[in-house]
Amino acid sequence: MTIAIPSLDLDCGATLAPVDIAYESWGELNSARSNAILILHAFSGDSHAAGHGGWWEAMIGPGRAFDTNRYFIVCSNVLGGCRGTTGPGSKNPATGKPYAMQFPVITVGDMVRLQARLADQLGVGKWLAVAGGSMGGMQALEWAVAYPERVASAIVIAATAKHSAQQIAFNEVGRQAIVADPDWCGGNYYGQALPARGLAVARMVGHITYMSDASMREKFGRRLRGKDAFGFDFSVDFEVESYLRYRGSQFVERFDANSYLYITKAMDYFDLSAGRRSLAEVFAEAKTRFLILSFTSDWLYPTYQSIEIVTALRRWNGDVAFCELSSSYGHDAFLVDTREQAEIVTGFLARTSESLR
Amino acid sequence: MTIAIPSLDLDCGATLAPVDIAYESWGELNSARSNAILILHAFSGDSHAAGHGGWWEAMIGPGRAFDTNRYFIVCSNVLGGCRGTTGPGSKNPATGKPYAMQFPVITVGDMVRLQARLADQLGVGKWLAVAGGSMGGMQALEWAVAYPERVASAIVIAATAKHSAQQIAFNEVGRQAIVADPDWCGGNYYGQALPARGLAVARMVGHITYMSDASMREKFGRRLRGKDAFGFDFSVDFEVESYLRYRGSQFVERFDANSYLYITKAMDYFDLSAGRRSLAEVFAEAKTRFLILSFTSDWLYPTYQSIEIVTALRRWNGDVAFCELSSSYGHDAFLVDTREQAEIVTGFLARTSESLR
Repeated sequence: MTIAIPSLDLDCGATLAPVDIAYESWGELNSARSNAILILHAFSGDSHAAGHGGWWEAMIGPGRAFDTNRYFIVCSNVLGGCRGTTGPGSKNPATGKPYAMQFPVITVGDMVRLQARLADQLGVGKWLAVAGGSMGGMQALEWAVAYPERVASAIVIAATAKHSAQQIAFNEVGRQAIVADPDWCGGNYYGQALPARGLAVARMVGHITYMSDASMREKFGRRLRGKDAFGFDFSVDFEVESYLRYRGSQFVERFDANSYLYITKAMDYFDLSAGRRSLAEVFAEAKTRFLILSFTSDWLYPTYQSIEIVTALRRWNGDVAFCELSSSYGHDAFLVDTREQAEIVTGFLARTSESLR
Repeated sequence: MTIAIPSLDLDCGATLAPVDIAYESWGELNSARSNAILILHAFSGDSHAAGHGGWWEAMIGPGRAFDTNRYFIVCSNVLGGCRGTTGPGSKNPATGKPYAMQFPVITVGDMVRLQARLADQLGVGKWLAVAGGSMGGMQALEWAVAYPERVASAIVIAATAKHSAQQIAFNEVGRQAIVADPDWCGGNYYGQALPARGLAVARMVGHITYMSDASMREKFGRRLRGKDAFGFDFSVDFEVESYLRYRGSQFVERFDANSYLYITKAMDYFDLSAGRRSLAEVFAEAKTRFLILSFTSDWLYPTYQSIEIVTALRRWNGDVAFCELSSSYGHDAFLVDTREQAEIVTGFLARTSESLR
């Protein structure tokens, strides 16, 4: 489904008009409108969270943690993306051509402001929960702070209250790989050759950061690809090289390079405590119940970043549950190692529902 | 200094002829020829280890750990590099043009075999010590295994007995960034535009892996560069972005992109236990004293890789000292956080000298 919003004011000061927002939903909104859950996707995700091929299929469905028999589940594509919601590849009404780099620089706050407009349209005054991993968790935090009255609970997985220098650095490398590609053409590549090589390199870096040293060792080790001995050339020697090249080239088929630039920038700008004296101050008005999860082997969004959030909430005696889950899958764990995560989310949602009765 | 070797047999089966090897030395070889130390440089290092601007200036000099008043210190540029020793940018005698991708794929074993020829020329039958960090440590290990009679001691810092999938992956991203640059031209860019953008991106990835999350936070945090507020554009916002872009562009001035390809490949091929049942077996004949050092915050060459070496040596009751040094500097620690390292090396070299008397 796609709905159109006449205009949206952005943190940069610009106004975007009109704005499309594409979403999917599962289950039914109850008559009390008290069972709605907003799922927030990560950097390269989209609204297809559940159902066949959904990125959180293991978490969402009948009888699953986000139980579609009990809850009304919504997931929308983020602002700035390339899957239906307005982004740099969308037509700029002022020119009739794709925005490209005329698209305004957006923030996580802008993404959430647009989602609030979607909630209005869907008749959801208050979410039972907003939930996501990675950038999805950042959006969940932003929701709880920007709209405390509209969020009964927030499930924040493998996320952070602000991007660190290292997280910014990895994103910057990806951006530089894209803009270094001559086919990027200052962003005006729509309808012609795509900056496929730059985008593939950016994605390769990403994939390394999503896995852990241990999971790469388990999955690839030093196994050679289709040969018994080193080739002594620069074709593929190792399985891991083949995997990265494949993942890079595959990504180009489904993702827009300019969206890569804009969304990573939004993540880097994200700092929940910006303009305040401390992160604790951010949560002074919070009425939301929080579930914060991290994973032992996630070195891209390390546990200490989750603990910073928990500590800030505890200052106000905030309602927060925190677990560091054991997994060797690195940052990918919230997508692929979901058993324990699902159990904890199930219980958390049940308790949240009870507390609202 | 540069000396010429008529020919060198390589692990790939090819023979390289002729081969130049460029080196520097400090101090004097004693009459017993028992005070020679070979310093082995890391990936992007060179023979200028000591003296003004030397990459290990803090470690090498009069009264320092590698005391030039006591020891005869030698450091050569690696095979495949771009600082005087034969590499892909050198003239191919068969064509009169640079080798470019006609250069044979080389190994750490080949690098060390060439260094052994240098030792012959210098009249050094046996090194008091071979020492290096990162790829330098890999060469030190190779020396001890390939020439056990010629190495009294090996100092192996922030290194590994074999590259892991993650280490291969980071190198592969760098290689792909280079070959994706249209200016790379299949390696035939000499005398024309260099693949500067690809090489810069490769270097940016490298710099992230050389630092730690903590050292990036201390050095950059979320500080903005030359502005008080976000620019809401894609110029530099954060200090860390500026740093990476600067380091990337600076690297292009001093390093050859094809050397990047060849040397990273040699590192990825490195596996001391290849063709044997275990790493322990490798050291069955070892007569060398080992000093193995790692750093707490080094996530590129983590401590467990050093412990693998120590464990293998212990199987044979090998003479090995191991320390994990505390540092927040990540992999760069062996270059920049040298105080404790220097103390330990000083003692280790003194004991090694005594044991030879």
